[in-house]
Amino acid sequence: MKTYLLIIAICFGFNAGANEDSIFIRKIYDEALENGQSYENLRTLCKDIGARITGSAEAKMAIDWGKDLLDSYGFDNVYLQEIKVPHWERGTPEAGWIINEKGEVAKLHIMALGGSVGTGGLIGGEVIEVSTISDLALLSEEDISGKIVFLNEPFDQKYIQTFRAYGACIDQRWNGCCEAGKLKAKAVVIRSLASSTDHYPHTGSMHYEEGVTQIPGAAVSTKDADLLANWLKEGKVYLKMEMDCRWYPDEVSYNVIGEIFGHEDDKIITFGGHLDSWDAGEGAHDDGAGIAHSIEALRILHKLGYQPNHTLRCVLFMNEENGNYGGKNYAEKAVENKEEHICAIESDRGGFLPIGFDIVGNDEQVALVRQYMDILEDFELYRFNPGYGGVDIKPLLDYYPEMIQLGMAINSQEYFNYHHSEADVFEAVNKRELELGAAAMATMIYLMDRTL
Amino acid sequence: MKTYLLIIAICFGFNAGANEDSIFIRKIYDEALENGQSYENLRTLCKDIGARITGSAEAKMAIDWGKDLLDSYGFDNVYLQEIKVPHWERGTPEAGWIINEKGEVAKLHIMALGGSVGTGGLIGGEVIEVSTISDLALLSEEDISGKIVFLNEPFDQKYIQTFRAYGACIDQRWNGCCEAGKLKAKAVVIRSLASSTDHYPHTGSMHYEEGVTQIPGAAVSTKDADLLANWLKEGKVYLKMEMDCRWYPDEVSYNVIGEIFGHEDDKIITFGGHLDSWDAGEGAHDDGAGIAHSIEALRILHKLGYQPNHTLRCVLFMNEENGNYGGKNYAEKAVENKEEHICAIESDRGGFLPIGFDIVGNDEQVALVRQYMDILEDFELYRFNPGYGGVDIKPLLDYYPEMIQLGMAINSQEYFNYHHSEADVFEAVNKRELELGAAAMATMIYLMDRTL
Repeated sequence: MKTYLLIIAICFGFNAGANEDSIFIRKIYDEALENGQSYENLRTLCKDIGARITGSAEAKMAIDWGKDLLDSYGFDNVYLQEIKVPHWERGTPEAGWIINEKGEVAKLHIMALGGSVGTGGLIGGEVIEVSTISDLALLSEEDISGKIVFLNEPFDQKYIQTFRAYGACIDQRWNGCCEAGKLKAKAVVIRSLASSTDHYPHTGSMHYEEGVTQIPGAAVSTKDADLLANWLKEGKVYLKMEMDCRWYPDEVSYNVIGEIFGHEDDKIITFGGHLDSWDAGEGAHDDGAGIAHSIEALRILHKLGYQPNHTLRCVLFMNEENGNYGGKNYAEKAVENKEEHICAIESDRGGFLPIGFDIVGNDEQVALVRQYMDILEDFELYRFNPGYGGVDIKPLLDYYPEMIQLGMAINSQEYFNYHHSEADVFEAVNKRELELGAAAMATMIYLMDRTL
Repeated sequence: MKTYLLIIAICFGFNAGANEDSIFIRKIYDEALENGQSYENLRTLCKDIGARITGSAEAKMAIDWGKDLLDSYGFDNVYLQEIKVPHWERGTPEAGWIINEKGEVAKLHIMALGGSVGTGGLIGGEVIEVSTISDLALLSEEDISGKIVFLNEPFDQKYIQTFRAYGACIDQRWNGCCEAGKLKAKAVVIRSLASSTDHYPHTGSMHYEEGVTQIPGAAVSTKDADLLANWLKEGKVYLKMEMDCRWYPDEVSYNVIGEIFGHEDDKIITFGGHLDSWDAGEGAHDDGAGIAHSIEALRILHKLGYQPNHTLRCVLFMNEENGNYGGKNYAEKAVENKEEHICAIESDRGGFLPIGFDIVGNDEQVALVRQYMDILEDFELYRFNPGYGGVDIKPLLDYYPEMIQLGMAINSQEYFNYHHSEADVFEAVNKRELELGAAAMATMIYLMDRTL
């Protein structure tokens, strides 16, 4: 859309092609809801491949799966983009126990944090509980040395958007081992960053700092965290654990890309999710759903014979979970190849009901998206506020600060019951909600292609 | 709010107490999300009582449960409102088989429609498939007489709001036996009105017409409907079925009511859901969730020390599913008692994510609700459009046409996977989503109490 038309459109809330847009979007939704393939695609990714942490055999199979599927749809161009990725493996599943002064023993539901060092056999130590990383900073080496630090900050249920609750307690997972390591702790266990109270431990990324001893870190289930906290109220508790996880050398992997070429120019609209997952469950909501959304969005636009103005590029990013090498490499190669990126859209918040898009952009860009709110309300999309795009597409902003980014906003109420745990399986995804997500993504690609 | 202030507020999108309202609503949400009791209340209703069709022992137990629970919260007034209700029972679970010309036999997942007559032993007949009630009308007595009519209109997945898809095919359940009876069919089986493809049959209400032979009607699962349709493509299919269901005389039952008195007047704001359910599953989403929402809304307002202007009346309606005697009697008694009803709010669309409220009212009343949209967006409530209130509260409109009615709008994507079937159990409800529903209802009660 020409700029002066856009200004008129924004000022007067007037969209010249509103009816045409609405009719086309209705076709997108009809195709998704009647003939949608996202659910069956997700089934094969979850059931025939399963969890697919970067560097695993499953991640390699997922790359083949993605390329074959994109190829099967007859897009203009399908290819692999080579990248270097980290490689960490859990090895033999973890085991852990707590023992109290009465001699009672309870087995823990425990998982190493992603990137942790192993324990080198069964280790043990007295548990010291702290509520938060800030509270840990108030303690001395004398308090902590040789002990196992138990970070027990709960998921704050008061947040209506659960991603905010997650953000508010992620510090204990990301920084716990660093901070406890500085005080010579033997290991760290954290309360899982989960909205539910159950037996699933939830893994996720952590990091070490240069020069600080690397100590093992693990998550225990919320039920186990409650049990441990209760036992600690009554006296000393000893914890034993063994973790076999370890790092391997970096290796070659791939982002998987499918394109429909623009017929006006070769400016690029990128959209995608991440193909890797943690090594628990089936990576269904995180982020098989985003992969299914993105592939299906391109399939629908292709099926409807849509001729885009700009190049529509679906990217299945590798390695979002532990390093984001896929996203970083993608951005670097975009610059190397002198590509012009105008928009990126990510789906990485699960396969639940889509409710809108969060917008990364200036006021004018926000208004540019919001001009379509009247149309989109008919498709039950309501939320179009400034916010976050996505981990995979964020590195593009370093090189293309003028571009607009969009993150699909999805009902977040259940997400952290499943996230990074054995519970994140295909059965936790609802068919219609997944299809609506694909339709929402196709819709936003279409609108941005027509507008930018 | 005084009328002239209201007009100013609506015209200028200005709400004098916006900040005060926002702070109070935040307290409602904090209480629901941190200390909410709706989920545990729903658990006891589902697990300790279970399905509770009008007239059953479980329905009687649910009345005691509701009264005891309302009593326990120390509201101003808790009482039972006596009503007459119908009494239909399924009896021995149904059985059905299909047999094709090759002699292959398949057992059906089958349930009598609510209100159907029984079969009087095992009956059988050749199956004749029709797509819709309209198609049935094109056939003659010669085509149909002595046969079993199979109405196979599918749930139209293209509707984004699934209640519309349900409405579009409900005719086959409600009218199927009447219309097939006129053509001397032996019985009717319908495709379940369900959004999913699985083995659950979904029951629901049907009716007979005066002077038309009453023939038995049943629903088969969507998978069985597909199987039957496939077999019919290859030749004749014979169906055998037995249903033991029957009617008993009307009996006495109760709506259960809890109130906090208004301190300005005794005008009434009614809010509620229905306590009865169909006799399958646990009536968790339909409508245990609405019961949990309504009780919890009053508990929260009471706990926060809110002093309402008008009387807040929580009503657990009996007999929504097969007769709506609870709603009809409630309206009649309101007139008898010379009550002044200004607003009614219903939750009867499940325990999923609330997204807003549908409004029954004139333009001014719609604007009156919509003035709060800016505040409510912070609580992820977006949809405030003219629409439907609810079955239980609708009869009030006959006597109080000036009142405003609101139906809680809830994410409908999964509802018809569970509705009226064995799948509608407590485990299908998410804790946070249920609590958000209770908070949304408390919020709307508060806003209407302050505004009207």
